[in-house]
Amino acid sequence: MDAMATPAMPDFAAWSRGVQSRMETALARVLPDAAIAPETLHAAMRYATLGGGKRIRPMLAFAAGEAVGADPARVEYAACAVELIHVYSLTHDDLPCMDDDDLRRGKPTCHVQFDEATALLVGDALQSLAFEVLADPAACSDAATQVAMLAHLALASGSRGMAGGQAADLAATGKSLELTELEFMHIHKTGALIQAAVLLGAMAGGALSASGRACLERYAHCVGLAFQVMDDVLDTETDTATLGKTAGKDAAQGKATYLTQMSAKEARTYARELIDDALAAITMFGAAGQRLADIARFIIDRRY
Amino acid sequence: MDAMATPAMPDFAAWSRGVQSRMETALARVLPDAAIAPETLHAAMRYATLGGGKRIRPMLAFAAGEAVGADPARVEYAACAVELIHVYSLTHDDLPCMDDDDLRRGKPTCHVQFDEATALLVGDALQSLAFEVLADPAACSDAATQVAMLAHLALASGSRGMAGGQAADLAATGKSLELTELEFMHIHKTGALIQAAVLLGAMAGGALSASGRACLERYAHCVGLAFQVMDDVLDTETDTATLGKTAGKDAAQGKATYLTQMSAKEARTYARELIDDALAAITMFGAAGQRLADIARFIIDRRY
Repeated sequence: MDAMATPAMPDFAAWSRGVQSRMETALARVLPDAAIAPETLHAAMRYATLGGGKRIRPMLAFAAGEAVGADPARVEYAACAVELIHVYSLTHDDLPCMDDDDLRRGKPTCHVQFDEATALLVGDALQSLAFEVLADPAACSDAATQVAMLAHLALASGSRGMAGGQAADLAATGKSLELTELEFMHIHKTGALIQAAVLLGAMAGGALSASGRACLERYAHCVGLAFQVMDDVLDTETDTATLGKTAGKDAAQGKATYLTQMSAKEARTYARELIDDALAAITMFGAAGQRLADIARFIIDRRY
Repeated sequence: MDAMATPAMPDFAAWSRGVQSRMETALARVLPDAAIAPETLHAAMRYATLGGGKRIRPMLAFAAGEAVGADPARVEYAACAVELIHVYSLTHDDLPCMDDDDLRRGKPTCHVQFDEATALLVGDALQSLAFEVLADPAACSDAATQVAMLAHLALASGSRGMAGGQAADLAATGKSLELTELEFMHIHKTGALIQAAVLLGAMAGGALSASGRACLERYAHCVGLAFQVMDDVLDTETDTATLGKTAGKDAAQGKATYLTQMSAKEARTYARELIDDALAAITMFGAAGQRLADIARFIIDRRY
C-alpha cells in the first residue's frame, strides 16, 4: 500500500462494500425468480451471478457516475448491465470447449453445478438480460444518450470487443506473443468492458462532453491494462483458495501473460506507471473523481 | 396452394427474393470484414450468417413495416438485428452439448467447419452485433421508441423468450408433453423472436397505436405457432437434401413435436386455422397488410 493510498483506504473499503451490497440487491431484482419457468435456467442464472464477485466493473460505473454528478439510481442500471455481461463471459469462458475450469468465485462453475447446455443458455440469457436492463426507461434521462449507451455496450461486448479478445486469447494459446500483441488481446478481452463500465456509468447522467469522455477513456484504458497485469501477477503468486479460482492455470495452459514478458517486479512497476497515468487523466473532475482514484489504487494494492 | 393465395404468389415470390437479396447485402455490410482481427472469428460469423436461410423473420419485419408505412431503410436495421439473433441461436443450438447437429442450410455447421470454441464465440458475438445494429441512430426516427425496440428484442431473446424456450425444449426431451406445454415451449423458442420481427419492423416507423400493436401481436402469435406446426410436419415428411438440415432428427432425439400429439393431416388443418386467425387479425391494415397476408399463406404452403 503506498503512502498516497493510505488515507482513503478505510473509507474506500466501506464504499466498495456498499457497492457490493447494493449490486447484490439490484442483481437479485433484475434476475428472474427461480420459481418462474424455465426454473432450472433461472436458478442457474442466479447461481452464476449472485453471492460473489469483486464487482469491480459496477464500482467503476458508480465512481464514474459520481465524477460527473449522475444520479446513482440511474447508474445502477448501467452497473447491472456491465456486470451481467461480465458474468456471462465468465460462464462461457469456463466451458469445456474454452478454458475448461471447474472453480469460480470459490464455487463449482455453472456447467459443473448444472450441465453444459444449461451453462451455455445461462450465458446467452445473461447477455440478453444485460441489454434489457440497460434499455429500461429509467436507465438514462435522455433517450438518445441511452441508445448510444446500448450501442457502446454492444460494441464493447462483441467481436471488436470482449468476444474478439477471447478469440484472440484462444488463438494465442501455446504461442509466444510480442508485448504489443498481448496488449491488443487484453485491450479487447477485459479492457473494452472496463471502459464500458466507466463510460456508461458517466453517460447515465446524460451526454458527455468531448473532453470528459476523452479523460474517462484514458483512465479506463490505463486501469484496464493495470488490472490485467495485476491479474497475471496474482495468478502466479497467489494460491487457489485465496483467488477463489484455479491459480497458475494460464501458465499451465501455455497462455501468454505479462509474466512471460517480464519479471513480477517489472510487472508491478508497469502496473504502477499505468495507475499514475490513470490518476493524471481524471484531475479535471477534482474531488468528484475521488472514487475513480480509489479504485485505481485498489487495483494495484489488491491481494486477490 | 389455396384459392386465395394463388393470385398473390408469383408477386410474393419475387418480393421474397428481393428481401433475401437485400438482406444478403445488408448483413454482409454490418458483419465485420474477415480481414479485420480477430480474422477467424469474423470469417466464422460471416460463414454462419451469409449465403443461405429463408430470411422469414426479415420478411416479417419488412411486411410489418409496410403495413404501418415505415421507411424500409429503417426497417432494414430491425430485420438485420432479428436475423442475427436467429443465426446466433442456430449456431449455439447446433453445438454438441445442445442438438449436436452437423448440417445447417445445406452446409457443415459452424462448429464442424471451424471448432466448438469458435462457434460459441460466433453466437455470443452475433448476439452483441444484433443489439449494436438495432442501436444505430438510423434504426428509428424516435429515440424513445428505439429504446423500447431494444428492450423488446432483449426480452424476446432471453430467458423469458427464445433462450427460455430452448431450455424448456431441452428439459422436455424424452418426455411426453401436453399440447399446452408444447405450445408454451414453442411460443418461447420460436414465437418470441417471430413476434419481435413483426413488432420491431412496425416500430421502426415510430410508436405503435395500442390497437395496431394488439393486431400485430395476434398475427405474430398465430403465424409463429403455424410455422412451428409446419416445421414439425416437414421434418417428418421431407428429406434431408430438400430441408438443408438433418430430417427426422426431432423424432430420433425423442423430442415432443406436434406429430406426437396429432396426425400430419390434423396438424395441417390446425396450421390452416391458425393462418386464418392471423389473416383476420390484420384486416385493419387493408391493402398495406398484403405482404403480411402473403407470408402467412406461404408458411402453410412451403415445402422446406
